[in-house]
Amino acid sequence: MKKVVIVGYGNIGQYAHKAVDVAPDMEVVGIVEPNLSEKTVDGIPVVANIADIAPCDVALLCTPSRSVPDLAEPLLRKGIATVDSYDIHNDIFEQQQRMSAAAKAGGTVAVTAAGWDPGTDSVIRVLLEAMLPKGITYTDFGPGMSMGHSVVARSVAGVADALSMTIPTGTGVHRRMVYITLEVGADFATVAAAIKADSYFCNDDTHVILAEDIDALRDMGHGVRIERKGVSGDTHNQKVGFDMSINNPALTSQIMVSCARAAFRQVPGCYTMPELPPIDLLPGEREGIIRRLV
Amino acid sequence: MKKVVIVGYGNIGQYAHKAVDVAPDMEVVGIVEPNLSEKTVDGIPVVANIADIAPCDVALLCTPSRSVPDLAEPLLRKGIATVDSYDIHNDIFEQQQRMSAAAKAGGTVAVTAAGWDPGTDSVIRVLLEAMLPKGITYTDFGPGMSMGHSVVARSVAGVADALSMTIPTGTGVHRRMVYITLEVGADFATVAAAIKADSYFCNDDTHVILAEDIDALRDMGHGVRIERKGVSGDTHNQKVGFDMSINNPALTSQIMVSCARAAFRQVPGCYTMPELPPIDLLPGEREGIIRRLV
Repeated sequence: MKKVVIVGYGNIGQYAHKAVDVAPDMEVVGIVEPNLSEKTVDGIPVVANIADIAPCDVALLCTPSRSVPDLAEPLLRKGIATVDSYDIHNDIFEQQQRMSAAAKAGGTVAVTAAGWDPGTDSVIRVLLEAMLPKGITYTDFGPGMSMGHSVVARSVAGVADALSMTIPTGTGVHRRMVYITLEVGADFATVAAAIKADSYFCNDDTHVILAEDIDALRDMGHGVRIERKGVSGDTHNQKVGFDMSINNPALTSQIMVSCARAAFRQVPGCYTMPELPPIDLLPGEREGIIRRLV
Repeated sequence: MKKVVIVGYGNIGQYAHKAVDVAPDMEVVGIVEPNLSEKTVDGIPVVANIADIAPCDVALLCTPSRSVPDLAEPLLRKGIATVDSYDIHNDIFEQQQRMSAAAKAGGTVAVTAAGWDPGTDSVIRVLLEAMLPKGITYTDFGPGMSMGHSVVARSVAGVADALSMTIPTGTGVHRRMVYITLEVGADFATVAAAIKADSYFCNDDTHVILAEDIDALRDMGHGVRIERKGVSGDTHNQKVGFDMSINNPALTSQIMVSCARAAFRQVPGCYTMPELPPIDLLPGEREGIIRRLV
């Protein structure tokens, strides 16, 4: 049994705990969360500082993306594998290079950007391009809550609480439905204009709606549809698609746990999901998987 | 540029030729096909015997599945990589073991079962299980022509020509629509009963239809829908799906060509597609692929 520490015990961390509990080949031995007052959760020790973690094989970094590389580097240099769902798309390669150096120094493995997008969606986009080398791939997200856009909307002056829904309108174009409550004295029209003017929203069809209670709107369901129409060899109009309707943190954390398993099967370095042999994500011996799924 | 020899110049071989022609990193240097009278095709030399092939890096084995292991073994022992779309599902692991020994002896790589099913569908089934470890996956094929079932129907006494269509009826259950023409003097009812009694058809809802001209019905389009509904961690009702509508030999041969590229990037041995890092299927450097698709 591989020993797992969960770093960060918000939504993803709590779901990751459940995913490890049902995995046949790993167990949670510690949780790092400064905001928890309990000393244990389900009998698992909770520590506030990552320096105090129990001996372990892998750390699941269930913290905001920006904090991931700084958390991962010292763990990797100590020989502890890490898995994260870092999702700042245009910065993944740079962070991977940094974590790869640390992983090689520690003789261990990091898997980065290991959620559903980036993550399994990235694997699908690569596979679709291998099948249809020429053509266009569209990734349509939602309907589902965007954590990033919700945080930005909440930070606008006059907003008490906010939730931004991503609505797919096809060909990779999305509508933003932003539900807000106001601070006392704030003017709705002014606040709505400020949200629409933010760089997170100004390029999208954004609708701001006054709500009575944001918490009553929260639903962690999400979805995606990836489509590629293209050319195999010189044969046109080949169409391939992928879709899902899922609980977002439950899937993200499950993918992280499957990637932790794959981490133990790679040579030292930092990997994104398309760099991992998919078979390494599953428990058990190759023979059984090949007989059952190939 | 990697040098490719195409072994077998039927549908798959001819489409493979086109797929290599548009690949930026490989070129066809020879064709093996005893049934071709021409000495060259598009300037590429044709030989009847595999012993006479030009020096090459990889052989695409575009022949019936049963002939693949015997063709692959001597090539692999000579250090020539091979790619095949061997599709006898319940025998893949055994053939892989045999080809793996030959590939290791020759210091080269074989990729086997590299079509769309087995092949890319296998990768999807593995990925779906990594995302939702508990649940049921259904693979629904079609509508499309089944080569194997058509051959069996043609072999029944009294049948002049036959085409068997696979029609998906959901949850992995398929209807077989078998179009036949009769030999002179054959009795339709007797022939239809014989087809339905064959082990390829007796477990399916099989309909035999008398046609005027089988060739007028031939369409190489095919499709698949793979669905998994299952559990991530302890969260139920997670749904993921994959679908496509494609020209069958064009996609099969394109996948073989992408797998030839991946072959050059693995350590010696024989691989099924879920054992290959998907990124190795694409031409170019990892950095660009990660920036663009992860």
